[in-house]
Amino acid sequence: MKSLAESAQRLTGQPMFQMLARVQELQKQGRQIIRFEIGDTTFGAHKHIVEATKRALDEGQTLYANSQGLISLRSAIADHVKETQGWRPSEEQIVVMPANAVIDAVIRCVVNPGEAVVMPDPGFPTYRAVTNYVGLREQFYGQIDKLADAVTEETRLLIVNSPNNPTGMVLSEEEARAVYEIADKYDVYLLSDEIYSRLVYEGRHNSPAVYDRCRERTIILNGFSKGYAMSGWRLGYAIGPVEVIKKMTLLFETMFSCLPPFIQQAGIAALTERQDVIEEYKERLRRSRDIMVDMLNEVPGVACEVPAGAIYVFADIKGTGLTAREFADRALSKAGVAVLPGSNFGPNGEGYVRLCFARDPKLIKRGGLALKREFSKIGAVV
Amino acid sequence: MKSLAESAQRLTGQPMFQMLARVQELQKQGRQIIRFEIGDTTFGAHKHIVEATKRALDEGQTLYANSQGLISLRSAIADHVKETQGWRPSEEQIVVMPANAVIDAVIRCVVNPGEAVVMPDPGFPTYRAVTNYVGLREQFYGQIDKLADAVTEETRLLIVNSPNNPTGMVLSEEEARAVYEIADKYDVYLLSDEIYSRLVYEGRHNSPAVYDRCRERTIILNGFSKGYAMSGWRLGYAIGPVEVIKKMTLLFETMFSCLPPFIQQAGIAALTERQDVIEEYKERLRRSRDIMVDMLNEVPGVACEVPAGAIYVFADIKGTGLTAREFADRALSKAGVAVLPGSNFGPNGEGYVRLCFARDPKLIKRGGLALKREFSKIGAVV
Repeated sequence: MKSLAESAQRLTGQPMFQMLARVQELQKQGRQIIRFEIGDTTFGAHKHIVEATKRALDEGQTLYANSQGLISLRSAIADHVKETQGWRPSEEQIVVMPANAVIDAVIRCVVNPGEAVVMPDPGFPTYRAVTNYVGLREQFYGQIDKLADAVTEETRLLIVNSPNNPTGMVLSEEEARAVYEIADKYDVYLLSDEIYSRLVYEGRHNSPAVYDRCRERTIILNGFSKGYAMSGWRLGYAIGPVEVIKKMTLLFETMFSCLPPFIQQAGIAALTERQDVIEEYKERLRRSRDIMVDMLNEVPGVACEVPAGAIYVFADIKGTGLTAREFADRALSKAGVAVLPGSNFGPNGEGYVRLCFARDPKLIKRGGLALKREFSKIGAVV
Repeated sequence: MKSLAESAQRLTGQPMFQMLARVQELQKQGRQIIRFEIGDTTFGAHKHIVEATKRALDEGQTLYANSQGLISLRSAIADHVKETQGWRPSEEQIVVMPANAVIDAVIRCVVNPGEAVVMPDPGFPTYRAVTNYVGLREQFYGQIDKLADAVTEETRLLIVNSPNNPTGMVLSEEEARAVYEIADKYDVYLLSDEIYSRLVYEGRHNSPAVYDRCRERTIILNGFSKGYAMSGWRLGYAIGPVEVIKKMTLLFETMFSCLPPFIQQAGIAALTERQDVIEEYKERLRRSRDIMVDMLNEVPGVACEVPAGAIYVFADIKGTGLTAREFADRALSKAGVAVLPGSNFGPNGEGYVRLCFARDPKLIKRGGLALKREFSKIGAVV
């Protein structure tokens, strides 16, 4: 009688966190590891955000709060959308929850078993992890101009992610409009994962949400982990049609009750205080990006382009003759450098590895040299 | 094509958080409301826990962490179980996540659609909220000695909750053993929700987990919200068989990545520092409980017993001739006192209302007088 649920057998989690656990295990054994595997930063959180969190703790903002999110935070988020996208959602269109929980909640609130989700390949692994355990059909697109080809009668939801993790691709205005028009034409929901929207280095962020202002079908995912170096706060949000947001709130309330109010105060500080640090932070990231691209292009058999957005270099390692996993395993065990195999991001990611460049330049240089030294032993095979 | 998922239509959330939102709305309109509806406390969190959180923030513990929980926190939890129950789980048997997420994860990891969960009525609403949206069968028991009668061939999981929310019932050692033996006899999983285990005022906490030490079928749910006045931290944990904990970790990793490390440090402080405050806090709660019971018994048509555990009085209001909802609505709108209808906790809760007594005695007296004044207008009908 006693056995695990069938859906539990299909759980895969997040490969970057499994790599994190493996790296921390090696570190505990005394190994020095240069860590490029996970999407957080060595730069540390901005001081005014830490102080806002501490102030809220001192003020006793430590009790249960509104499940949908503090009205003051939702209001600050609405103002932020107005400022960055030119339209203002209502507070009822917003729910505050971790960004990964948004992916899970959107998919579970709008897609039935047997129906399908269209998603990028390579793409963020949680999209696939959720459709997989819930038992949904998956449809993939590579380049954004192939998105429409992936849509079928079974499609209920499209996912786009600009800037993209892991490739750094950024939608042009025409592409963002085309994406919205496809969703409109097929009358499906559209999840626009904009978690890296503040981190566009060339050009600007274009959101497909501007066309329906999240009233009809578009759901924006955003959060504080990446643009504000707040990965450890686990604070994100969704903006969408009121009936979808209501259901997502009920799901979040069931599983989590609410987010800590002192954590939500950190979000208010991020959106309203010291906006000068954002550009400064982006400049630091841009410098780190350029250094990492240069270093990697010196590794025999490795080639990479300069990503337009996000915080990752997605390096082509096919020239080494290794698979993505072989490359990542060798990088970790021999060079002491943690990178993620591109195959973690879907079949199209085979032949690539992902490295997070939100790191101190010195660390990037050390890691780059270690990789160069190790992979010079085999040399480029093509 | 575009419509919400079927399961989303079945979401009900947590009635206490919906009441919280309603109360905060009234407060924003300038109404004075005496709040007994939600299970947190006016006493405030212990200072050393706030300080530990702030220290971790200052130390930069603000990045991603192990999805299963910091090993140092899991180790402190294992020591705590050893101290309170006489056996020590391994760190692999523990996953750190919010307590409501534990309920959701246990149910989804061990029960398939079409199978059934046995749960208390009256009982904590999240049990039913989860089985309902997942599409599982529900089987209820009133008194604990009727638990075996609820079990059928379809049963996959039993839920017990001692001390019980909302009734305050505490399992005797014999009852805890009988519960374990029923789970063993029918070879089903057993979720022992022990979130109020530190708050037993008469007798002691008895866990059915001592019989298999969470190796075979028992999963303990516990957390910091209640025993340590840390509701706003959203920190809890599960202890169970390694194969179940692994799946729960993957599910949590998919949805939340990890809990903030600075929040986990607060849990370590709660378990290892200033243990003297626990007894002190319990004594304050005991005094508040006794005052609330006395006050309520003076309200015409209301009768209540002294609960042995947890932080709620579950008052019989049948003598007023009102339904639970009518009583709660009238208490809020006319007396300015927020209570929860017992019917929120299941059909057996009809005729009762739940009040949280983790409040300052002055507030309890004011609330009690307001209720007495209002319900004296109708008087006891039976």
